[in-house]
Amino acid sequence: MKGEPSSGPTANAKLVGAANAAEPRVAIGIANDEADDGQWSRPAKDYASSRYSKLAQINSANVGALRVAFTFSLGVNRGQEAAPLVVNNTMYVVTSYPNFLYALDLTKPGAPAKWTFKPAPKAASQGVACCDVVNRGVVFADGKLILNTLDGETIAVDANTGKAVWRTQVTDINLGESLTMAPLVAKNKVYVGVSGSEFGIRGRLTALNLGDGKVAWRAYHTGPDTAVLIGPRFRPYYAAEKGKDLGVKSWPGDAWKIGGGGVWGWISFDPALNLIYYGTANPGPWNADQRPGDNKWTAGIFARDADTGEAIWFVSTSPHDLFDYDAVNELILLDVPIGGQIRKVLVRPERNGFLYVIDRESGQILSADPFGPITSYTGFDLKNGRPIPNEAKHPATGKIVREICPAAPGMKDWQPSAFSPRTGLLYIPHQLLCMDEENVEANYIAGTPYVGMTAKMYAAPQEGGYRGEFLAWDIANRRPAWQIKEDLPVWSGALVTAGDVAFYGTMDGWFKAVDARTGKLLWQFKCGSGIIGQPTTYKGPDGKQYVSVLAGVGGWAGAIVAGGLDARDSSAALGFVNAVKDLPDKTTKGGILYVFTLP
Amino acid sequence: MKGEPSSGPTANAKLVGAANAAEPRVAIGIANDEADDGQWSRPAKDYASSRYSKLAQINSANVGALRVAFTFSLGVNRGQEAAPLVVNNTMYVVTSYPNFLYALDLTKPGAPAKWTFKPAPKAASQGVACCDVVNRGVVFADGKLILNTLDGETIAVDANTGKAVWRTQVTDINLGESLTMAPLVAKNKVYVGVSGSEFGIRGRLTALNLGDGKVAWRAYHTGPDTAVLIGPRFRPYYAAEKGKDLGVKSWPGDAWKIGGGGVWGWISFDPALNLIYYGTANPGPWNADQRPGDNKWTAGIFARDADTGEAIWFVSTSPHDLFDYDAVNELILLDVPIGGQIRKVLVRPERNGFLYVIDRESGQILSADPFGPITSYTGFDLKNGRPIPNEAKHPATGKIVREICPAAPGMKDWQPSAFSPRTGLLYIPHQLLCMDEENVEANYIAGTPYVGMTAKMYAAPQEGGYRGEFLAWDIANRRPAWQIKEDLPVWSGALVTAGDVAFYGTMDGWFKAVDARTGKLLWQFKCGSGIIGQPTTYKGPDGKQYVSVLAGVGGWAGAIVAGGLDARDSSAALGFVNAVKDLPDKTTKGGILYVFTLP
Repeated sequence: MKGEPSSGPTANAKLVGAANAAEPRVAIGIANDEADDGQWSRPAKDYASSRYSKLAQINSANVGALRVAFTFSLGVNRGQEAAPLVVNNTMYVVTSYPNFLYALDLTKPGAPAKWTFKPAPKAASQGVACCDVVNRGVVFADGKLILNTLDGETIAVDANTGKAVWRTQVTDINLGESLTMAPLVAKNKVYVGVSGSEFGIRGRLTALNLGDGKVAWRAYHTGPDTAVLIGPRFRPYYAAEKGKDLGVKSWPGDAWKIGGGGVWGWISFDPALNLIYYGTANPGPWNADQRPGDNKWTAGIFARDADTGEAIWFVSTSPHDLFDYDAVNELILLDVPIGGQIRKVLVRPERNGFLYVIDRESGQILSADPFGPITSYTGFDLKNGRPIPNEAKHPATGKIVREICPAAPGMKDWQPSAFSPRTGLLYIPHQLLCMDEENVEANYIAGTPYVGMTAKMYAAPQEGGYRGEFLAWDIANRRPAWQIKEDLPVWSGALVTAGDVAFYGTMDGWFKAVDARTGKLLWQFKCGSGIIGQPTTYKGPDGKQYVSVLAGVGGWAGAIVAGGLDARDSSAALGFVNAVKDLPDKTTKGGILYVFTLP
Repeated sequence: MKGEPSSGPTANAKLVGAANAAEPRVAIGIANDEADDGQWSRPAKDYASSRYSKLAQINSANVGALRVAFTFSLGVNRGQEAAPLVVNNTMYVVTSYPNFLYALDLTKPGAPAKWTFKPAPKAASQGVACCDVVNRGVVFADGKLILNTLDGETIAVDANTGKAVWRTQVTDINLGESLTMAPLVAKNKVYVGVSGSEFGIRGRLTALNLGDGKVAWRAYHTGPDTAVLIGPRFRPYYAAEKGKDLGVKSWPGDAWKIGGGGVWGWISFDPALNLIYYGTANPGPWNADQRPGDNKWTAGIFARDADTGEAIWFVSTSPHDLFDYDAVNELILLDVPIGGQIRKVLVRPERNGFLYVIDRESGQILSADPFGPITSYTGFDLKNGRPIPNEAKHPATGKIVREICPAAPGMKDWQPSAFSPRTGLLYIPHQLLCMDEENVEANYIAGTPYVGMTAKMYAAPQEGGYRGEFLAWDIANRRPAWQIKEDLPVWSGALVTAGDVAFYGTMDGWFKAVDARTGKLLWQFKCGSGIIGQPTTYKGPDGKQYVSVLAGVGGWAGAIVAGGLDARDSSAALGFVNAVKDLPDKTTKGGILYVFTLP
């Protein structure tokens, strides 16, 4: 019953604009291009976060023959957002809460578990996870797996023995803090964020020593400059980011102390510039009437010195955020020819609907193009580096504001894109949703939700019922090359390979391979549960190329299934349930690793 | 990483005795041979319980190319013992508690659920399930699916709409009763049993009208003849079964009222004789000192009139059972040439370790051969139809009796065998375990465990560490044709086809296809979780043959994983945990449907 690409549920998917495929494109390089040993040691593949593999054994000509090599039950039926890693012929897979970490021996048929590490996070941590109890992955470094647990521990696990080397408590569930992001390791530091901007947390990034887990430094995202690690080296490009203690002054009273701005998304690293890049989440509460001001340094992008944590620049993507437009999405570091010279940029398909290209040395925004329907802003002002507000869409108390696009999860959320230097295209999995919103008063009680907004989401009316899209964005020409419209939000990560195949999954369980140049569907397989995980690829001990992905619907988008929410409550999951009421008819809870290869 | 048949974990499996393969065998027929439409409408396939399919597209020459067609996550990670059914291009799958029933549309690639029926059994029913919260399958009849729930409802669900047509409460959790068996439908009756012989229940079989779910008759397994439906037509073959009200007299005092003898296994039907056949479970409590006597009518096989329920004959397989030797296993109805004439027999690979061949008209035992190492009996007395007790192995209070073989789960448990008329072989999945036991006093409190035995199981010392076996038994020659020794108990069902392929699964997740004539491993696939389900096969809407099985370790044998039991407690799961302490290192919890086909 494996579906042929042309039949069945994929009738819901529609390819648009592939005619551009043959167009010549300028060469764009991945920053600090790394050798590819066929392993996959961190979720984003490389420091540039390309999610591009140089393996090409599986290619656009033969991918149609892909078949299941083996499967593994994770033993946990909640949203599975993690990326399977492969290092030294061992696959490492982490589950959603309770964050089991499995080491699978790829040298043995069927890949039995060599060891399983069970961190036993506090059960109460489930109560402070806003949007399912996901985990976005572990990272391998220096013979250790670095694991974040939902209750806020960062744990180094010995890759050989499966025993903890060190455990550091980084966040506090009593304050509404949780931990879902994948850490990044660069040089000898482990960078760890915090989730909970819907609980009045105070966001920050923490750097731990890789060797012993001790805190090296901590940079807050609200408060005085000393706490934010803003000092003499801070040179933001735009005027609004200049001034003393803006992390206090851009807030009313003490609101900065409970102002959100967590870090639950992605971090990139440029070894040549010795800078890390990451985004900060929404300010809290969602009700913006309670926090007049720019609400710095929430909802923006930081560049920091990788060793000291000193802030170098900041770009505010959603100043005084009105819509829960977290700025935590992935940052892809590319070297792009622009105006006759190679510019070191970072590319950010942003939650607010604009695809930013930013000079990663200076913080100057080179371009910001909409990649889907936007009503919350009327355009983008490159002079001040900010989107132009649309007053008509400002949420208010006692008034339902309709058709705000994109909805709270943004034009895209955490689900990471992939970039191929062979095609010059960025492959963006994302959603096409709008929302109605009304502000209500939020009251802060430590450890409880602090939101102040009633939202109801639905398919973007501009998109003919399609709630998701797999978009190939032409970086050089600043426009879509092609788009695959999908019935449901595309909440999985993307993968692209030197075989010119791009992979993604759908929330009803189809794992798809498409031609990286044209978007043509080449192969698909129906997994047991909806896919919100990050596909990866690797070379096995037998020399063959494999592709792996976790199935297990959930996350914010799939909480209706993973958390068993009631479809009649349109405000459930902060309004997301309303947009995916039909999901329980289309998939079931799960937690399954799938690994594919050619016959 | 799919294992080649000759490598990897299957090194743990050893084929013995295949040299007999070429021997000519006499023709043995399946009773009342039915046409095979390529569907699979009840767990046992046909009324004779052959689990034999006439489909031969997948055969011993091409099965090596089998591959995954699609998968489906059941959303429930407990032991999955059910058989996937296929009727009218729809697959019906039932899960362990909470007994979700899915209807998958096979005409659509990837088979999304057409409907899901959620019966919402009482959560307390989990507390009266002795050995994981399994369900052994639904049955399709008359446009309805007949579903038993753990809390004791039998529900008819309309196959088109997924709505309940009728619901009848058959058992009572307040008395320790649960319901795990697959019902049988024959003519216009639904036959339903009861689980809970470890809780002091009073066992019985209930016949419901297929049309409206009303109780047609109920036959108890203890008590006066009127309650047991013993009347003038009862003609047992052996003297010990003759007499008035033996269901009272063979018990001390009122012990028969809480004497166990449930029905949680299999029922077969002979339309020509209009008889149903089924076995009764162990007497309660396990401590036999508390119930001197034969303890009728527990631990034996009944033949009853299918319409009226009148008892026709009874064979006592373990009179005054000392070892929890339930008699609930499958009964395969065959027509066998014996001594120059065709005898209508039923074949029963029995928990006590003897493979019975019984004349199904008279109840005469024609043969009873050991099919594994037995110490609990010294032999079998065909004159009185009983195994010969070994006094040295009788459990006692204050004394640990060692090396009782087979252990409490018997030489085989519920996991059903399959018979091929092409080979004359019965394919028996089973375990090779012994135990140490000590009686302790059991006190009856309604709804709580009533056992009175401390047991500790382990690999049968006679078997070199192998705890399981897939055995091909030569019916005509009354001996093994070949045996595949397995590391773990083989707790899955068996399937055999006209393609001369036999299928079974292992508790560490290998789904295996072997040559039905020689036992040679032809293909295997590593499923995500251990397999204790019943494989089935069917012809899909595209005319191709498919093979399906549920993965999801659990049941009594896998409770250590499914229930998260502590390996340090050797008496956990009534002593089974001790025999499978290593299981958590070999598999994970799951609940996944796998469907395979040829490319």
